Amino acid sequence: MTDTATLYRDLLQRAAVLSDLQQVSTLLFWDQETHLPRGAAEARGQQKATVGTIVHERLTDPALGELVEVLEAADLPGGSVEAAAVRQMRRSIDRAARLPVALVEELEKHTARSRAVWERAREERDFRAFAPELERTVELKRQEAEALGYDDHPYDALHDLFEPGSTTARLREVFTPLRRETAELVRAIGASGRMVDDRVLHQPFDEGAQHRLALDTVRAFGYDLEHGRLDVSVHPFTEAMSKYDVRITTRYDAQGFAMALFGAMHEAGHALYEQGIEDGYYRTPLEDAAGLGIHESQSRLWENLVGRSRDYWEGAFPKLQRIFPQQLGGVPLETFYAAINKVEPSFVRVDADEVTYNLHVMLRFELEQALISGDLSVADLPTAWNDFMRDALGIAPPNDALGVLQDVHWSAGHFGYFPTYTLGNLMSVQLFEAAKAAHPALAQEIREGRFATLLGWLRENVHRHGARYLPDELLKRATGSELDAGPYLAYLRRKYGEIYALT
Amino acid sequence: MTDTATLYRDLLQRAAVLSDLQQVSTLLFWDQETHLPRGAAEARGQQKATVGTIVHERLTDPALGELVEVLEAADLPGGSVEAAAVRQMRRSIDRAARLPVALVEELEKHTARSRAVWERAREERDFRAFAPELERTVELKRQEAEALGYDDHPYDALHDLFEPGSTTARLREVFTPLRRETAELVRAIGASGRMVDDRVLHQPFDEGAQHRLALDTVRAFGYDLEHGRLDVSVHPFTEAMSKYDVRITTRYDAQGFAMALFGAMHEAGHALYEQGIEDGYYRTPLEDAAGLGIHESQSRLWENLVGRSRDYWEGAFPKLQRIFPQQLGGVPLETFYAAINKVEPSFVRVDADEVTYNLHVMLRFELEQALISGDLSVADLPTAWNDFMRDALGIAPPNDALGVLQDVHWSAGHFGYFPTYTLGNLMSVQLFEAAKAAHPALAQEIREGRFATLLGWLRENVHRHGARYLPDELLKRATGSELDAGPYLAYLRRKYGEIYALT
Repeated sequence: MTDTATLYRDLLQRAAVLSDLQQVSTLLFWDQETHLPRGAAEARGQQKATVGTIVHERLTDPALGELVEVLEAADLPGGSVEAAAVRQMRRSIDRAARLPVALVEELEKHTARSRAVWERAREERDFRAFAPELERTVELKRQEAEALGYDDHPYDALHDLFEPGSTTARLREVFTPLRRETAELVRAIGASGRMVDDRVLHQPFDEGAQHRLALDTVRAFGYDLEHGRLDVSVHPFTEAMSKYDVRITTRYDAQGFAMALFGAMHEAGHALYEQGIEDGYYRTPLEDAAGLGIHESQSRLWENLVGRSRDYWEGAFPKLQRIFPQQLGGVPLETFYAAINKVEPSFVRVDADEVTYNLHVMLRFELEQALISGDLSVADLPTAWNDFMRDALGIAPPNDALGVLQDVHWSAGHFGYFPTYTLGNLMSVQLFEAAKAAHPALAQEIREGRFATLLGWLRENVHRHGARYLPDELLKRATGSELDAGPYLAYLRRKYGEIYALT
Repeated sequence: MTDTATLYRDLLQRAAVLSDLQQVSTLLFWDQETHLPRGAAEARGQQKATVGTIVHERLTDPALGELVEVLEAADLPGGSVEAAAVRQMRRSIDRAARLPVALVEELEKHTARSRAVWERAREERDFRAFAPELERTVELKRQEAEALGYDDHPYDALHDLFEPGSTTARLREVFTPLRRETAELVRAIGASGRMVDDRVLHQPFDEGAQHRLALDTVRAFGYDLEHGRLDVSVHPFTEAMSKYDVRITTRYDAQGFAMALFGAMHEAGHALYEQGIEDGYYRTPLEDAAGLGIHESQSRLWENLVGRSRDYWEGAFPKLQRIFPQQLGGVPLETFYAAINKVEPSFVRVDADEVTYNLHVMLRFELEQALISGDLSVADLPTAWNDFMRDALGIAPPNDALGVLQDVHWSAGHFGYFPTYTLGNLMSVQLFEAAKAAHPALAQEIREGRFATLLGWLRENVHRHGARYLPDELLKRATGSELDAGPYLAYLRRKYGEIYALT
């Protein structure tokens, strides 16, 4: 009989090839979003499909299945790296085995078309043009949920793909009080009578200078440009081929630097996570992030808890004024700090501030659950959207482009993804508080533009572990706590209580 | 028994997957040369190796071998597309089967290191640092030639990889008189006493304007930017993922526009070929170019026969003057035309003019044959190089960086490649003459900046055929002639006889 060590080496060899192919798929996607000639979209789809098929063939190879089964039955120490790698491979092969190839192919073909239809529908503000596509997507996603299997709610199966171990029931439990207390805070801010003037952000800013600012900022955070690069794309994103090649994008607005700068900070947060994964996990099943919620916690931590903090700008604002003396030279720090933290109910999620953002997420969470369970029909979706907006934020979009058509996710078939944004927000504060507790001088260091201690703590407690722990366990190990909306709400009340002089 | 049509469909299905994987490899290379972060080189090597291994596994799959064998024995009509596709697949599987995996891997590993050593050796002008690497390369290339097999000279096996059907004996036959007559022309030009002043080319030119000029020029030639793009790289190149995604690069010199413009014309010539291949050949064994000689004929045709012709500049020079009025406003067309066609013995092949260029190629052809056959040792290479230079061009390089170390090819293990440059030059004139014979108004159209007729003729007679015909047959069908140095020499005598007022 072959010994466990030999079998495990065999597993790692198969995982390494799968990793290379996954890296190739990532490059195919990155190139598609940044450089692909328009007329090559179909050929790119073909390349992706072929690589996907080869990955699927290898994941469903019975020899791999047997290998994993034997290793699961072997006496790998609980909590060991080896046991975690086997667990991750089990997730991958189960997903591949459970999803019928025909369904995967139809989903790919359908969402490629549906995304194009959505783009036009959004341009023309015509939800009805998109509705039949979305109906079919919902149908296919239900089939996907059934194929994947779930205990409680079909939404669990879809959400688990993005945040392993997280469930609809748990999300409800955390989101319900979060929604109530957030809405209260929004009302208090509205009632404060205090108006934040953010006109300083809306002036012409040279794009070259914006680019250098973004680059200098993410480099200062610790983003390693020997293993990364900053490009331009329509929608900013981060893609990691491996920890050795983690690329971010941003976009420039000639009428304001904020979009590029905070966008770059956000993506750098994602990138720092990927770059920080243990070297030894490269080309193993542990080389990925634990989940998208944890991923988002890193982007939001750098974008908001660092990048929109008073501590940060006490050090950084004088430098920013030297870069843009005409636009910002005479602006007091307090005016600037309030401007970048202005709270205002708005239609579009990606423009939302830290306070209202989670309401946008919870709207989508409610609606997509209802769509998947069949409680809501696609035809009724715009009304449901607008009702929620009125109830939660007191405004309703003037058209569907600013409402139900605004996000790409549903057109691309990404159901179960949205909640990870709020999970990220909540965990970002839990993690940041834990880092500050471990390093009381952190705030002072941030004021001085030094981020090595913070990054070091995140590396040690989050990044390096890759997919070794499920998100819940990772959070527990790093902070000592379960997922909890309390710290996030306390953070909001403290920060915005001050900005809006709430009692 | 399965019928031939079914078997052929099976072949095409396997070819389509191989094509996608080849396209992926091309993207991995393109990205490596244009965007890859420095620290990701090793990971990229790993990705390429994995894709290469999967391609090798599929090419050596016994089922594919049997399929090709049965199709070869079937009654596919001679000269048919089907027969050509089977022939091309045979070439691929034989090459894969004959080359031992261990040799391929060692060559890859060795040339990766050797290329890095070469770069440093060239910087430090130290051939001896590179010599041991090159010795090993020569040894491995000899093994490769033996493994591939040949009838006459081991060099045949290596050269055939780049120009199918071409042989060392045939090259000698064509090159020997070419060398003699070229040397005579160079002497006559030197003896003419006429000095061409090219100082107009060496002035500051805005890089943005250079980029727009390059882009407008290649677009006017017919390069389709819906299926391509123009980037910057250290060494200009063209890479075709498929005919639907053909990317070119160029580079900019702040002290002259010529490098960027003629470089872009050259790469556009390559790109027009790839973009012109029959749609029906996409993802089949016929989707590639016939050979690198034919490929180079297209780049040289657009760069030299169009781009350095008086006809072209009669129309284009006034436009160029409007783009760069300060630098070129007062320059007569004749001065400019002579400047871009200045003949001068020089050390570096890539800087050589149309007259002396082939001498650089023939030098390399001689030396690499002698290295492969063992008639020349690596230690004696610099002396042999300098002797040839003195004999053919009357000059010898002051150091090895300007001599034997100048090209990347040998460091990368590309033996047998160089002759395709001269094959390209010779065929470019043969093809251009044929196009002019078919379309007597061609010169006038070029003067007017209209290239559709020329491109149409090339599409019809060269591009669309992809790899359907071997290079010899393709040339014969397009021009009615075999490979012949006569037209090229006649072209040089005519053009340079006039510029240098030779009798």
